[in-house]
Amino acid sequence: MKAELITIGDEILIGQIIDTNSAWMGQQLNLHGIEVYQVTSVHDNREHILKALADAEKDADLVLITGGLGPTKDDITKECLCEYFATELIYFPEVFEHVESLLSARNVTINQLNRDQAMLPASCTVLHNSVGTASGMWFERNGTIFVSMPGVPFEMEAIMTEEVFPRLIKLGILESIVHKTILTLGLPESMLAEKIEHWENALPNFIKLAYLPSALAVRLRLSAYGTDRALLETEIDKQVKELLTIIPENIFGFDDENMALVIGRILISTSKTLAVAESCTGGNIAHSITSNSGSSAYFKGGVIAYSNEIKIKLLDVPDEMIEIHGAVSQQVAEAMAIGAQKALNADYSISTTGIAGPDGGTAEKPVGTVWIAVAGPSGVKSEKFIFRHNRERNIIRSTQTALNLLRMLILNDIKE
Amino acid sequence: MKAELITIGDEILIGQIIDTNSAWMGQQLNLHGIEVYQVTSVHDNREHILKALADAEKDADLVLITGGLGPTKDDITKECLCEYFATELIYFPEVFEHVESLLSARNVTINQLNRDQAMLPASCTVLHNSVGTASGMWFERNGTIFVSMPGVPFEMEAIMTEEVFPRLIKLGILESIVHKTILTLGLPESMLAEKIEHWENALPNFIKLAYLPSALAVRLRLSAYGTDRALLETEIDKQVKELLTIIPENIFGFDDENMALVIGRILISTSKTLAVAESCTGGNIAHSITSNSGSSAYFKGGVIAYSNEIKIKLLDVPDEMIEIHGAVSQQVAEAMAIGAQKALNADYSISTTGIAGPDGGTAEKPVGTVWIAVAGPSGVKSEKFIFRHNRERNIIRSTQTALNLLRMLILNDIKE
Repeated sequence: MKAELITIGDEILIGQIIDTNSAWMGQQLNLHGIEVYQVTSVHDNREHILKALADAEKDADLVLITGGLGPTKDDITKECLCEYFATELIYFPEVFEHVESLLSARNVTINQLNRDQAMLPASCTVLHNSVGTASGMWFERNGTIFVSMPGVPFEMEAIMTEEVFPRLIKLGILESIVHKTILTLGLPESMLAEKIEHWENALPNFIKLAYLPSALAVRLRLSAYGTDRALLETEIDKQVKELLTIIPENIFGFDDENMALVIGRILISTSKTLAVAESCTGGNIAHSITSNSGSSAYFKGGVIAYSNEIKIKLLDVPDEMIEIHGAVSQQVAEAMAIGAQKALNADYSISTTGIAGPDGGTAEKPVGTVWIAVAGPSGVKSEKFIFRHNRERNIIRSTQTALNLLRMLILNDIKE
Repeated sequence: MKAELITIGDEILIGQIIDTNSAWMGQQLNLHGIEVYQVTSVHDNREHILKALADAEKDADLVLITGGLGPTKDDITKECLCEYFATELIYFPEVFEHVESLLSARNVTINQLNRDQAMLPASCTVLHNSVGTASGMWFERNGTIFVSMPGVPFEMEAIMTEEVFPRLIKLGILESIVHKTILTLGLPESMLAEKIEHWENALPNFIKLAYLPSALAVRLRLSAYGTDRALLETEIDKQVKELLTIIPENIFGFDDENMALVIGRILISTSKTLAVAESCTGGNIAHSITSNSGSSAYFKGGVIAYSNEIKIKLLDVPDEMIEIHGAVSQQVAEAMAIGAQKALNADYSISTTGIAGPDGGTAEKPVGTVWIAVAGPSGVKSEKFIFRHNRERNIIRSTQTALNLLRMLILNDIKE
């Protein structure tokens, strides 16, 4: 089964929005064993949309289309689908009722644009949109299934989950692909590749390995293809176990896990708590932690000490220390970590102080210089890093590195 | 001039990474007046890559290719380009020297995989990668330019900025498209459309309007097409000025601006400072503020009060108040805002307390219930919201709504 995705909208091509829908659909289709053959992004333009539909029909068994279904004039997907499938828009009273009830719950008065959303192609199966006013549409022709959905991510996700997947499963569309992603930190891609070369070369030929480096991790993705799903899973598990013996320190998690989640799990199992004291990361460590649901079980909170005044007042960093060593120093980083541990009454703490950029760098402390400290029952540890990227990336790298230092400290405490 | 983007990599199609490169390139090309005709994402597969190259050559004058240039075995773009352009890999000593010096600066020992990165197609113009080891490649055939770059975003961005754009400008490739995006908040898409209908219908025919709703704003994008760039800019300015008279309260910024940036500008111009007290947003408001460079001029910091203990200890929220009204209440939200104002010695403050989900909701206070307070020299204001989305979206919506409440408060203070 080959799937193709078509995303429609000028806003994607001029880069005003990032196409997260394709990633979500690719991921979900994969979990269901369907391979995405190609993603194509096209303009809100009749000829271009019709060409993309025709091209996709040649190659794909399933064509998922997003975008261009809003109530406004720039959205022309519905008209193009009518032309492509030689049908016409007709009025669906049940869709109108749904739009009406949804908008009245939001205290929005219905207008002609909303009314038009109940006009849908006569030959399609309407897919209910439980969270929005633009319905999905399902067409079939010459063995190819076409599904059109709105481009708003949570509306597309609702239609996929509630309408599209149940129908595809009912039709018996399934293929076995098993993926496992191993999250590593601490080794650059080429060193990692060298270290695991023998393991990689010994992989059975139905397992493929891919390297996916990012600011957060170098991820290794294993993909096994075949008919016997159970066998694929067993073989993948076996390979992962072997890899764990080769780079045990560097593997911090699997699949969709994130570093903060992994740390949270350890803290819950050991009944310990965590606090943060952030300067250059400006709240991003706390945000990474609290993005995981259930984090209130171990995360007490933190102090964002963006000014020296706050470092002194809320984290008890001595005035003179900042004067002598500067705010970006080992001494201040350690004092902040200890200060957070005390002020927030937590077992563990993380602190950051550095220069995220683009301004504020000096010859001695260039942009990207960050001191990170982690404190725990066994004491405080600190380390200096120079990331030399742009502001956004410096913040992300500082956050991830700080969390990893904490992970190492906690694991070390557990061992002892 | 028509451009097409081809992104290569299984990780995009299975949704393991989100294709941010296409958005960046689309945006940059647009600023330079080049229209992206299509984005195509394909597998690390020889036949598929060759087909995408051939398809693109038919339609496009400029084909930008990313991905598949890493040192590891799953990357086959270079071999495919050799086949497509009927050339072969040869050794480029200057590339090897660059790879060597880059890796030694990082204390990484060079290995065979790195050495292979100096092997590049004989017929290409090598594009220097100042921040990485995978070079870019420039080919020309039958009037179409092909550029291949690594998929790591900051490496692609460096090659585009330092190598590709200077070459394209030199070749005189330019077309006039002028975009202006207007950021609005407070009106759902259909109400906004109704309110500005007359203005929209009166737009000259060379200006196109698009609605781009997201969790952060409903953005209106005006695009003017023509030969006289100055004229296009004048006409866009005129239309924006008119729109400002129709929905003055709802427009909070333009183009790539964000709410926190706009607030920062006002705070700097009035020499006021800001602090935050975050519970359910868990650091995301502080992160939004500190993502903007220069924020240290007005942002003093904040307290992430994820547990009640911290609300009491660091923000001076009375113990009994939490007991009587609950942590998610108007009283606590206001006390947190006032507490942050005092503890951090700031002119303005924002506080949030709510239930981000998925757990913790009750019949009385369902998931998505958030109390937001903003405090300033003129006093404190608060409002209750029920967002009813998933955790991530509830956090984003709470953050953006809180910032907007602060913006309204500050603007009101200035007026008086």
